[in-house]
Amino acid sequence: MNVLIVYAHPERRSLNGAINDFTVERLRANGHAVQVSDLYAMNWKALLDADDVRERRSDAPFHPSLDSKHAFENGLQSRDIEIEQDKLRWADALILQFPMWWFSMPAIMKGWVERVYAYGFGYGVGEHSDTHWGDRYGEGLMAGKRAMIVVTTGGWESHYSPRGINGPIDDLLFPIQHGVLFYPGFDVLPPFVVYHTSQMDATRLQTTYDALSKRLDRFWDDAPIAFRKQNHGDYAIPQLTLRAELAEGESGFAAHVE
Amino acid sequence: MNVLIVYAHPERRSLNGAINDFTVERLRANGHAVQVSDLYAMNWKALLDADDVRERRSDAPFHPSLDSKHAFENGLQSRDIEIEQDKLRWADALILQFPMWWFSMPAIMKGWVERVYAYGFGYGVGEHSDTHWGDRYGEGLMAGKRAMIVVTTGGWESHYSPRGINGPIDDLLFPIQHGVLFYPGFDVLPPFVVYHTSQMDATRLQTTYDALSKRLDRFWDDAPIAFRKQNHGDYAIPQLTLRAELAEGESGFAAHVE
Repeated sequence: MNVLIVYAHPERRSLNGAINDFTVERLRANGHAVQVSDLYAMNWKALLDADDVRERRSDAPFHPSLDSKHAFENGLQSRDIEIEQDKLRWADALILQFPMWWFSMPAIMKGWVERVYAYGFGYGVGEHSDTHWGDRYGEGLMAGKRAMIVVTTGGWESHYSPRGINGPIDDLLFPIQHGVLFYPGFDVLPPFVVYHTSQMDATRLQTTYDALSKRLDRFWDDAPIAFRKQNHGDYAIPQLTLRAELAEGESGFAAHVE
Repeated sequence: MNVLIVYAHPERRSLNGAINDFTVERLRANGHAVQVSDLYAMNWKALLDADDVRERRSDAPFHPSLDSKHAFENGLQSRDIEIEQDKLRWADALILQFPMWWFSMPAIMKGWVERVYAYGFGYGVGEHSDTHWGDRYGEGLMAGKRAMIVVTTGGWESHYSPRGINGPIDDLLFPIQHGVLFYPGFDVLPPFVVYHTSQMDATRLQTTYDALSKRLDRFWDDAPIAFRKQNHGDYAIPQLTLRAELAEGESGFAAHVE
């Protein structure tokens, strides 16, 4: 299988760097082809702006989604965006690896999502009608591929537990797992989380590698998170609210998992 | 009062640009002093990296939090960071204004948070002990100041309703409202959300301005979201889990609101 790892950490000589190296080696040892988009090393342009469109009329107001649509449809996207899109086409699996900063991914990775997920590629895909609201949330160009988050946190596991002060880790990652990965069609595996990074020593690192190895070895066998598909009857269209008879009385992120 | 608006949109001739102009004018008409950090216009550096520290030994591994601590304590931060920190010191209120992109703030604004919230300024503040886990979540250098999100979405209001497919807007904004604003001490007002931006016309824009005016005029009177403070007895320390007798049986983000 082909695996794309999108990786964001400013220092290669870091825990994240070590985990990244380990992941690449393990996947290759298992016979997979691996590409790494090391965003800091690539000096990835984080800002979505008018420079993302080639041969653009410079006096026209820039419209993020309509300009993206125009550029994608007409082969006028910035070259760095096209290269990343080709990597996604090539990949059977995507791993997003990052340190949790302010309860989300680093800005440089957010900018990768914003720019690479063009209109017509990451969103704005498929028919929009009274019964089908675009190919998204379980459908889309990434359908049939798998994805997983590998994330480190400074905080303790209990701080991210169901009643932990930061909020539960699954809820904090929902905007990424559901909104960034499931949205264009990925099957999303449960995240691999390394907590309390300041207390890492050789023993704990080995335990971490062992646990990560198991997850990587079972990557194509583990069950993905059972997010509900948008266009298969669970949601009223176009309101896109969960039908009353499903997850009765529930609201919030968890209602969108079967 | 002094108001800082941190604003992120790549095109001034946009709905967000118009809302930004309107907000500034309304606040000034009410007698407030206003500064705008227009991040795209400033070409704000979104990437947190070793260049954020002046006079840095270039061969030492870069550690995001420890390098930030060193730079903050020794007056060695990059000048653009210091300027934004001074604006926050000056401000009685902070407004974060942005279009929702992939269920969070644009990368350029995320990079503002990551770089301006230095160790010793946005986090790592105050005593760490068995009864007091740093000045955060209701305490910190921003205590006594107010904050509010002004956000636009392409999706419909129903898509962000309690059972909407994107997840409830309050939950999607929790990592920002609780994790970025309440964390360093801001009192956080409910967000002002403009949905379904593709269907904006002159009539609806006027309705939007009227509603926003009311919110701005009551900025110092409205009740903030009642997030629970960390160090006032609601949480076990150092586990930082909500005490069993509070919000009994509940988990998730909502449990952290009284």
